[in-house]
Amino acid sequence: MTIVPESHLDLLERPIYGHFGTRRPDGFIQVNPMWFLWDGSHIRLTHTTTRQKYRNIAADPHVSLSVNDPDQPYRYLELRGTVVAVEPDPAGEFFQTLARRYSLDRSGPPGDAADRVVLVIEPTAVSFQ
Amino acid sequence: MTIVPESHLDLLERPIYGHFGTRRPDGFIQVNPMWFLWDGSHIRLTHTTTRQKYRNIAADPHVSLSVNDPDQPYRYLELRGTVVAVEPDPAGEFFQTLARRYSLDRSGPPGDAADRVVLVIEPTAVSFQ
Repeated sequence: MTIVPESHLDLLERPIYGHFGTRRPDGFIQVNPMWFLWDGSHIRLTHTTTRQKYRNIAADPHVSLSVNDPDQPYRYLELRGTVVAVEPDPAGEFFQTLARRYSLDRSGPPGDAADRVVLVIEPTAVSFQ
Repeated sequence: MTIVPESHLDLLERPIYGHFGTRRPDGFIQVNPMWFLWDGSHIRLTHTTTRQKYRNIAADPHVSLSVNDPDQPYRYLELRGTVVAVEPDPAGEFFQTLARRYSLDRSGPPGDAADRVVLVIEPTAVSFQ
């Protein structure tokens, strides 16, 4: 079961960048382009424990991902939800899965693999057009 | 004077969609694709007073706009800031300026012109790659 409408599922399945919104401890909103994977029920992002977005979600787990269709920019899907798990990825395997999904021309684990984690997001609300 | 780096100014000048982040009164983060205009010092968005994003910025004026380069997705610019003014646009003139900028095939004011406003955002922090 998912709240994602069948009509917009392609936006999660195609390797489109998502724009990921978090809230900083200083109260400012932060939005950045991110790779993501949709596993049928959760959004999975690769990140590290040493960066600002990690501090943001540690302080406030509310997040949002906005994806629009590069071929029809009025078509978009937004998933709002919370980070429900942070899974270690010390060999950078999930990073490499995403690198392949987004056709990044590289191989092997990233240099910061030791700090890599998977942010697991449960969407609880959706908007789309 | 602007905090936008010269190297990434094209991302504000080209008619690329921005992903606009706000915080909802329920604490959830909201991110949506939006038209925008950069006037050299402020970001200007068209919106209406009857919609969710307006309620969001009325409760919390912190916002962020993320723009990535459709031709080189690793190139992006994020502007964080606050809504410093909400200007009435009762004839929908600014809406029509943006419609032209984004090549929307329409003419005349929008049906909801009476509720149209311009959100004026002052960026106070920037991130880019």
